[in-house]
Amino acid sequence: MLQLILGGVRSGKSSLAERLCQESGKQVIYVATATAGDDEMTRRIARHRADRPDQWPTVEEPIALAAALSAYDDERYCIMVDCLTLWLTNNLLDTKDSWQTEKAKLLQQLSTLRADVIFVSNEVGLGIVPMGSLSRRFSDEAGWLHQELAARCDRVVMVVAGLPQVLKGPPLD
Amino acid sequence: MLQLILGGVRSGKSSLAERLCQESGKQVIYVATATAGDDEMTRRIARHRADRPDQWPTVEEPIALAAALSAYDDERYCIMVDCLTLWLTNNLLDTKDSWQTEKAKLLQQLSTLRADVIFVSNEVGLGIVPMGSLSRRFSDEAGWLHQELAARCDRVVMVVAGLPQVLKGPPLD
Amino acid sequence: MLQLILGGVRSGKSSLAERLCQESGKQVIYVATATAGDDEMTRRIARHRADRPDQWPTVEEPIALAAALSAYDDERYCIMVDCLTLWLTNNLLDTKDSWQTEKAKLLQQLSTLRADVIFVSNEVGLGIVPMGSLSRRFSDEAGWLHQELAARCDRVVMVVAGLPQVLKGPPLD
Repeated sequence: MLQLILGGVRSGKSSLAERLCQESGKQVIYVATATAGDDEMTRRIARHRADRPDQWPTVEEPIALAAALSAYDDERYCIMVDCLTLWLTNNLLDTKDSWQTEKAKLLQQLSTLRADVIFVSNEVGLGIVPMGSLSRRFSDEAGWLHQELAARCDRVVMVVAGLPQVLKGPPLD
Repeated sequence: MLQLILGGVRSGKSSLAERLCQESGKQVIYVATATAGDDEMTRRIARHRADRPDQWPTVEEPIALAAALSAYDDERYCIMVDCLTLWLTNNLLDTKDSWQTEKAKLLQQLSTLRADVIFVSNEVGLGIVPMGSLSRRFSDEAGWLHQELAARCDRVVMVVAGLPQVLKGPPLD
Repeated sequence: MLQLILGGVRSGKSSLAERLCQESGKQVIYVATATAGDDEMTRRIARHRADRPDQWPTVEEPIALAAALSAYDDERYCIMVDCLTLWLTNNLLDTKDSWQTEKAKLLQQLSTLRADVIFVSNEVGLGIVPMGSLSRRFSDEAGWLHQELAARCDRVVMVVAGLPQVLKGPPLD
């Protein structure tokens, strides 16, 4: 089962994804797209890590997400990817300009994955887009990615103030 | 029938509006509020145009939207207006400061229109408002416009990640 | 009954809260967290005030919200708090850095309040977070506050284009 959990800043989207991972009854693999580039980011990563169960193996992969998923593509696993917008940012800032390639690999892979995957992503398109072409490109690419993923996922949920709203697929328990 | 399609950046709101236009069974008139001021805007317009059926006549009207609708006010037509936030921007930047006049004309016109109209607009009010009085005025005016239009439209839809959520009116097929 | 009304800029969230206050049949107390720091703010406050019934006593309290609620904690009252994001801003800018203390006081108080309270707050987390550590902290704290309040409120509503969407609790009439 493929699920996409969208939400704003501190909306509770990661908490919901963690709950869904635990309810899957499968071995959870946590794929973190964050890298500790500065002190603030190090603190944010530590806080997220403290919220997660200890027994979840963590894979750090800022760029090559499809490859990370392939390594755990087995029906015994539920893979939580947190989060897609950071993965997008990492790719846009990457000197190889890897975004289109990495996105195409991920989308192609989804139809044949045997593992469950729960994608977490920030909804960032509902405010004024700040000045600057990078902000505009980031907004565009995030919007397109969410559309393409949502079309392929079995369930899409938007979290507002910790309250999940199912946009597609079966209701939550 | 009057419809308002709201959504974030690249949320799929124009695609939904185009689908609804085609399902109307009427002759579609496309009213574009964008003007090609720079290279990036020219590319964005070309991309939108490539997505539309060739047989839809396109009217470009950045400022005087009510006048553009009047010219096609016939029940044989379904007019797609894409998008209102750009029309708002054009009016706010207009040296005549035409916004209040143009908005009043549009709202007054809606109760007697015989054509179907599908308005597309960016929801921009759910993020932090950037510094600067123009950003604040833009946010305010967009919010007020959406409220006034939503009250007058038969159906209002919010699109998130390509998934339409009906906020008012009959469900989508 | 505790209610949280979320919405974007000029989404109609205050209007909905005012309607719910009037429908409560109780004496309404209006708690304004805004302070008139500049001309624009003075105009915004005046506009909000003009929209409210005259007979509603207004309490201005930018920082110590829990204390303001305590002063009217009686089941005869329905207290409207407009708005929480401004209260957060005031606390973050306060030289005493009062936020964690004030927030803890409010959350602790909620379980024993006898008055009805309707909180109005801006949903600000669904756009790109502007540069700067204050913007990031504001986004984080607003998101956390909304989650904690939503968990404690009997009804949570998100207003989009003037159209209320109930996220939790009983439907609106």
